[in-house]
Amino acid sequence: MFESAEIGHSIDKATFDAAVPALREALLEAQYELRQQARFPVIILLCGIEGAGKGETVKLLNEWMDPRLIQVSTFDQQTDEELARPPAWRYWRQLPAKGRMGVFFGNWYSQMLQGRVHGRFKNAVLDQAIEAALALERMLCDEGALIFKFWFHLSKKQMKARLKSLQDDPLHSWRISPLDWQQSKTYDKYVRVGERVLRRASRDYAPWYVVEGVDEYYRSLTVGQILLDGLQAALKTKSRQEPQPHAAPLTSSLDNRGLLDSLDMSQALDKADYNEQLIAEQARLSGLLRDKRMRKHALVAVFEGNDAAGKGGAIRRVTAALDPRLYRIVQVAAPTDEESAQPYLWRFWRHIPARGKFTMFDRSWYGRVLVERVEGYCSPADWLRAYGEINDFEEQLTDAGVVLVKFWLAIDQQTQLQRFKEREQTPFKRFKITEDDWRNRDKWPLYRDAVGDMVDRTSTEIAPWTLVEANDKRFARVKVLRTLNEALEAAFAKD
Amino acid sequence: MFESAEIGHSIDKATFDAAVPALREALLEAQYELRQQARFPVIILLCGIEGAGKGETVKLLNEWMDPRLIQVSTFDQQTDEELARPPAWRYWRQLPAKGRMGVFFGNWYSQMLQGRVHGRFKNAVLDQAIEAALALERMLCDEGALIFKFWFHLSKKQMKARLKSLQDDPLHSWRISPLDWQQSKTYDKYVRVGERVLRRASRDYAPWYVVEGVDEYYRSLTVGQILLDGLQAALKTKSRQEPQPHAAPLTSSLDNRGLLDSLDMSQALDKADYNEQLIAEQARLSGLLRDKRMRKHALVAVFEGNDAAGKGGAIRRVTAALDPRLYRIVQVAAPTDEESAQPYLWRFWRHIPARGKFTMFDRSWYGRVLVERVEGYCSPADWLRAYGEINDFEEQLTDAGVVLVKFWLAIDQQTQLQRFKEREQTPFKRFKITEDDWRNRDKWPLYRDAVGDMVDRTSTEIAPWTLVEANDKRFARVKVLRTLNEALEAAFAKD
Repeated sequence: MFESAEIGHSIDKATFDAAVPALREALLEAQYELRQQARFPVIILLCGIEGAGKGETVKLLNEWMDPRLIQVSTFDQQTDEELARPPAWRYWRQLPAKGRMGVFFGNWYSQMLQGRVHGRFKNAVLDQAIEAALALERMLCDEGALIFKFWFHLSKKQMKARLKSLQDDPLHSWRISPLDWQQSKTYDKYVRVGERVLRRASRDYAPWYVVEGVDEYYRSLTVGQILLDGLQAALKTKSRQEPQPHAAPLTSSLDNRGLLDSLDMSQALDKADYNEQLIAEQARLSGLLRDKRMRKHALVAVFEGNDAAGKGGAIRRVTAALDPRLYRIVQVAAPTDEESAQPYLWRFWRHIPARGKFTMFDRSWYGRVLVERVEGYCSPADWLRAYGEINDFEEQLTDAGVVLVKFWLAIDQQTQLQRFKEREQTPFKRFKITEDDWRNRDKWPLYRDAVGDMVDRTSTEIAPWTLVEANDKRFARVKVLRTLNEALEAAFAKD
Repeated sequence: MFESAEIGHSIDKATFDAAVPALREALLEAQYELRQQARFPVIILLCGIEGAGKGETVKLLNEWMDPRLIQVSTFDQQTDEELARPPAWRYWRQLPAKGRMGVFFGNWYSQMLQGRVHGRFKNAVLDQAIEAALALERMLCDEGALIFKFWFHLSKKQMKARLKSLQDDPLHSWRISPLDWQQSKTYDKYVRVGERVLRRASRDYAPWYVVEGVDEYYRSLTVGQILLDGLQAALKTKSRQEPQPHAAPLTSSLDNRGLLDSLDMSQALDKADYNEQLIAEQARLSGLLRDKRMRKHALVAVFEGNDAAGKGGAIRRVTAALDPRLYRIVQVAAPTDEESAQPYLWRFWRHIPARGKFTMFDRSWYGRVLVERVEGYCSPADWLRAYGEINDFEEQLTDAGVVLVKFWLAIDQQTQLQRFKEREQTPFKRFKITEDDWRNRDKWPLYRDAVGDMVDRTSTEIAPWTLVEANDKRFARVKVLRTLNEALEAAFAKD
């Protein structure tokens, strides 16, 4: 969930200065159009890590746009008047009117995050609060509102550095953060609870946008661009019955660096190391799957990746040392007639293994947010709601003891080209390359966006994505096996 | 929630026999059209009170329709295969394909009801289960499914009689219900938990239908008619993006008897009794509002009713003996500009009183499901989702200590006519009667349906409707005051 926001996104000052005038003009224009149409309000919720730039961003938005049409509300201590009424009353009285923007700096999420981090209640109560928030947001959206939820993020290291620099700066030392943020345990808890909140509360009608906060230029441009895209899309809709206009890529990577770009693709294994490690990891997996602690668990591995990234080869290495009665490989292609007659997830549910068993999905339920999104096989409304549905689905699996490991096998364009050509030239590999593969290759940037969104939306504490640097097949195969083994051992250790 | 299903609905055999052939033919036709289109599946969930006719209804549906296209699933003990997988797996494997109908006899609701009734978990966990069920249902609906949820109801007295008769009948004694249903405490718990489940899980895309189960003719025709209406509406839609086709009146009262018809409208008070009781109740209210236990509560009273039912007069009698600093009267008319620029509930939230205070709403948030529904001031999608939104809203109020009392002042058509004429003839009352009033009168049956649905959907344990027989103004005024007093005393007693 937060991976993409810990890779050190940055934009240099010159690029920033060059981009700002056009962005400001477009934002102002959108703002006046919003006032003119007066069809819907815009609600902006800000949350995230201390020191990640929430306050600065609000200041900047007020500078960039017409502050008379933005109303900033903070929700700290409740006033006497608020304490005398139901908790939601304070939010209702601050709602922006149609045609206006409201920034809720501190909001319903801040309160539940604080409460859970400080142990004032448990997950069941947190989940009730999340559901209440979603009910409110859905109602606001049904009534026409456009909602943006921003999570400003820093890695733990980034946060510590940031707090330190604020402390040392005489101009900012009054801003010293609450004491508890100085403790790294607070950071861990905050991120863990935040992850649960974002996973459950990111919905098509009101998604969360995670923004890396360490570089102010990147952060500011990113927030500005997301707002602009969302506003322009919403202003173009004809009626409030149309789908919520949040169809822009959820990850707006203005510095052209995504999570995939941050991989070290040069990683490789020589043949001797490979043989040794492969056999060791295969034996380890075979042992773990026969371990009696496996009775409480099932193992599900999802294999996704670029064409020719080596999914099939990796799967064969995984199964090499396994008892065939213990595992199944499910190859996901176009749905059968029977599958088409059912809800999307049905064809995956039917293959969920019983406890003690292991199922590998060669392509998976992520097809909806990859190929179906890029090729337009489903409507934007369908793939936009799929992230939430998939997270719900995976939570049901892991709640039942399923250990879920998800691999994205990544190769670069050059490597793909080589492998395609090699396939064409090798008679027994020719069946593996089709016109479709070449067509998909032309859509490389669209797939890159889709993969970025997918990882950001669905890499969760309970079911993280593992990005596998697969230019070197040997490295990739060993990493896959090792990741499976580590996931099983971690699950056993928690029992 | 269950009031309309405890009034002894019944249909005589002759009417039943006359109606069945046409209904069966239409159902069969709809079923074949469903298979023909193969665009969506139909899922029917059955829950409710033991002995209320769930099993008989399933049998009947299979008799009436083509059983090859209906698949009945029961979910009792989990099988070994099911136990080895996530809990939802058993439901997924039984989902009907597009073009087919699935009856889930025992389902996700049965399990959470049982669990909560037997104290295996508390409300927070129940609420998580409800939210999980709604997430599943919303996803199924987004994927095109048409879902019906039936609650078969009996009053406690009806249930006891029914269980007794089954026991005495040698043909049915094998059907003796589980022991715990013999205890009236189980009934109370089941109804209380059921009420919470229905209140939270009745949504526009998958509403609950409550069917009184005591008379088999009424029960069978009602279920058949609701299915037919829903199916026909869904078959007419062009795409699955259209709003869910559940726009038929939620209460289908085939015997032409609603809750309103079951009131004894002849109730009256003579002048001496009235004066005595009025003064006593006014003094009691004045005392209660000044009681120090009032510091934890606020009082909100909603006045709705037929035109000329005497809302204004009742409100004046309520306030007669009160300190004007303690109460406010909010008259709800067309929204102001400011109110129009906000979500629907905003104009009511702004008037929610602080603790210690009392607010009367002369007309209220129920406008959306009354006048706005009947006059078409909002779309069906808007008023259909309003029931759930209103229940959420009222739960927030009562959770915060607000005592919420809702009155429907009911008069019959004859009484209304007299009062209208009287108003026209009395100079100082002439302002109270307009063309609108006469127009509304023509829509009496539409309003009756809307009031029936409103009470069925929003009369909840936390905020029940009080139906006030208002043909006699004196009787109505005293009943209003007494109800307010009793509600306050009940709240104080619980503190």
